[in-house]
Amino acid sequence: MRWRYILCFVGILSIFLGLTMIIPLICSFLYQDNTSRPILISAAITETIGLLLFYGFRIQDNDHISPREGIAIVAMGWIAASFFSALPFYFGHAFDTFTDAFFESVSGITTTGASVMTNIEAVPYSLLLWRSFIQWLGGMGIIVLSLAILPLLGVGGMQMYKAEVPSPVPDKLKPRIRDTAMILWKVYAVITLAEVFFLLFGGMSLYDALNHAFTTMPTGGFSTKNTSITHFDSIYIETVITVFMLLAGINFSLHYQALLGKPITFWKDSECRFFLSFVLIITIIVTINIYPVYESLGTAFRYASFQVVSIVTTTGYGSADYELWPSMTQIILLLCMFIGASAGSTGGGMKCLRVMIYFKYCYKELISLIHPRAVRQIKVNFKPVSSEVVSSVLGFLGLFVGVFAISSVMLASMGVDLVTSFSAVASAIGNIGPGLGTVGPTDNYASLPALGKWLLVWCMLLGRLEIYTIIILMLPEFWRK
Amino acid sequence: MRWRYILCFVGILSIFLGLTMIIPLICSFLYQDNTSRPILISAAITETIGLLLFYGFRIQDNDHISPREGIAIVAMGWIAASFFSALPFYFGHAFDTFTDAFFESVSGITTTGASVMTNIEAVPYSLLLWRSFIQWLGGMGIIVLSLAILPLLGVGGMQMYKAEVPSPVPDKLKPRIRDTAMILWKVYAVITLAEVFFLLFGGMSLYDALNHAFTTMPTGGFSTKNTSITHFDSIYIETVITVFMLLAGINFSLHYQALLGKPITFWKDSECRFFLSFVLIITIIVTINIYPVYESLGTAFRYASFQVVSIVTTTGYGSADYELWPSMTQIILLLCMFIGASAGSTGGGMKCLRVMIYFKYCYKELISLIHPRAVRQIKVNFKPVSSEVVSSVLGFLGLFVGVFAISSVMLASMGVDLVTSFSAVASAIGNIGPGLGTVGPTDNYASLPALGKWLLVWCMLLGRLEIYTIIILMLPEFWRK
Repeated sequence: MRWRYILCFVGILSIFLGLTMIIPLICSFLYQDNTSRPILISAAITETIGLLLFYGFRIQDNDHISPREGIAIVAMGWIAASFFSALPFYFGHAFDTFTDAFFESVSGITTTGASVMTNIEAVPYSLLLWRSFIQWLGGMGIIVLSLAILPLLGVGGMQMYKAEVPSPVPDKLKPRIRDTAMILWKVYAVITLAEVFFLLFGGMSLYDALNHAFTTMPTGGFSTKNTSITHFDSIYIETVITVFMLLAGINFSLHYQALLGKPITFWKDSECRFFLSFVLIITIIVTINIYPVYESLGTAFRYASFQVVSIVTTTGYGSADYELWPSMTQIILLLCMFIGASAGSTGGGMKCLRVMIYFKYCYKELISLIHPRAVRQIKVNFKPVSSEVVSSVLGFLGLFVGVFAISSVMLASMGVDLVTSFSAVASAIGNIGPGLGTVGPTDNYASLPALGKWLLVWCMLLGRLEIYTIIILMLPEFWRK
Repeated sequence: MRWRYILCFVGILSIFLGLTMIIPLICSFLYQDNTSRPILISAAITETIGLLLFYGFRIQDNDHISPREGIAIVAMGWIAASFFSALPFYFGHAFDTFTDAFFESVSGITTTGASVMTNIEAVPYSLLLWRSFIQWLGGMGIIVLSLAILPLLGVGGMQMYKAEVPSPVPDKLKPRIRDTAMILWKVYAVITLAEVFFLLFGGMSLYDALNHAFTTMPTGGFSTKNTSITHFDSIYIETVITVFMLLAGINFSLHYQALLGKPITFWKDSECRFFLSFVLIITIIVTINIYPVYESLGTAFRYASFQVVSIVTTTGYGSADYELWPSMTQIILLLCMFIGASAGSTGGGMKCLRVMIYFKYCYKELISLIHPRAVRQIKVNFKPVSSEVVSSVLGFLGLFVGVFAISSVMLASMGVDLVTSFSAVASAIGNIGPGLGTVGPTDNYASLPALGKWLLVWCMLLGRLEIYTIIILMLPEFWRK
């Protein structure tokens, strides 16, 4: 492990992050909300540390980075970004404690959307924009992580996506990641821009449109309103956001193919088909289940579709208080938190691809009892899935469930009730946002004990970095020569 | 699939079951509780159908039974035994509906211990004895199933236990099962007898001692008292039952080895070590967690140890209302319901062996990220575990979780609340007994809707027959030539 490599990359990341603070700074000048000083201080700290790290540990551009160093860079990068992103909140007095500022920042960078803000609308505009913007940055990070970095590192079955996005330099790690990243970011930016346009068209202010586009595309779910999307009470806006949440929940390499003029790719991809069919079926079940609450099929469908898409894509926006819905729907939504969106999207959770592979695996095992000698291969998109990918996926799911179980017990040990503990941890690991109980859709995470917030910070990072990437850092073997 | 084979075996089973009804019959004569008529009618029906099936579909003793037929025999056998065992309850008017009688019977035969009796102490002695006795029979069934039948059929990783118990005829399926069964049943009977002795020594009546020994050894948990073990309020009785619950939760082939004079086997077996250490660690955590409730470390340990052993071994006796305990302990107990006891014991749940194998699998996957080229094998008891066993285990766990998720949603769809749905289904699939919410340790399952009871009947059977054995019957491939 060569620490200078890791620190150098953290330096580059910090320099970049510090520069983006110009966006809330402009906003603070426009709205005159007295936050330019804290933002400037934050940017100065971030830039200084970034430049010190970069120049202190400068490396040659053609240096080779080992997979292990790659993992360490990813983990440290996310943690550093969370730390620096928390500074404007902390210096801007959006929160009383650094714990809260850091929680909000990790929730942003990991695109979770769990909030400890008790009165969002009282927070200065520039800080809210920063809060949304770091989610958008987190989304950029995660697309590149899942489609350009993890496939090369072989984490959690993502090696399946090796070379999904073409690159002119197929062999070298760094140029490959750089090229893939540029392509995917363009796609991400184009779709975000489209959402801004559609939201403006629905009568949203430019400020709100920007904020909500910044938090839809990373399936983040921070809103500028206390009551989230309920505030706008507009079927048009809900529909636009639903469509873009769905887009954000689909593998971005498919969007890239589609933008190249091959929209059929969506249907050809079996994970995408699974994801869309799953959303449709769950929406129908929930619509029927909540029909007695609204006594109108249209209204039931309106709220069901939005809420199901919001949870399955792990965005976490609210348009209704699902805690008033029947327990069946609450259980379905809780289970959906585990399943999550597509691999290679900005969504969290276990990911449809992995759930699909596990389904197929179990089915294969059943069949092998009937035909013990028959050899069956698991296929996705008509292509056999290598046994390494299957193993990675199964290992990932085991770790996911294990982390969930242990973290729930730990959260409950702090005096949090059963339903809140389970759902807060599920929501944090799945990077969703709202849960049930005292962290339900109309509540927030402010009332949790400080230690519980740190536990959830840990869960959000674990979930976002595909568990492996963080847990591996805790193994002594990782640090051994 | 040759149906005559299946029906013939069901016939033999029914003849045997009908004969055992002589036990409650004797009890009814002794206590003059007016149940001899309903028991006689039940026995007559069971014997008649049994004899008809046996003579109608008689087979040659040396006929070969295929693995597929073996699976069908197991599933049909359990369902038939549950049906016939329900007759004395139904004809004896212990319940108003056949649904309730069948629920209680399945809960007995599957050694679950979930009850729909609202006032146990008002039920005639002979019927209560029958209720305990069918749990004991269910325990006999499950030992043979898990150590003699499933290893040969290759279900759920149990093939690991092939030839754990020696047999003079190692090759043929039927004689081998018969010999292994005889050895294991002797062990089972000896330990049960020992428990009766120890309970009598503690001042229990012979009737209660028999009943509780009949329900401890199969990790069943039916009690003759409304308040379960709380009724006796005796540290001695709780200790005796705790020890025998632990014994029941250990692989019976280890007991066989121990009775042959090799008690070190317990410590040499890594699953047994895992099981006992796990129980110890959880007991300590729960003791500390519930200490504030009792304000005495001794009392806290007394209740914690009994309840933890009762849940982990999937027995389900109650000595305290754990719903009054902190949420952390409730979550721990809920998670313990999933883990369960050892494979080859009478306990249910996923089984320690499988959880251990999954732990090792996840660890292996983590290590393979650090050393991609190193080949590591999963070992249990210093012996490598074959990849078929690992696959079977992983498939089993996936099916277990899948069945749990779908069944919880279905139970909630009947208007049952979230916590009750989750815990009732977990308790049923894990063959435990009590859950949380309206099916907590001081409640029973009577208040659930009839359809919900049938769903749980299904879950109890699925859990008891290692999921595979039942689900496979639902695949069209199973019935194809």
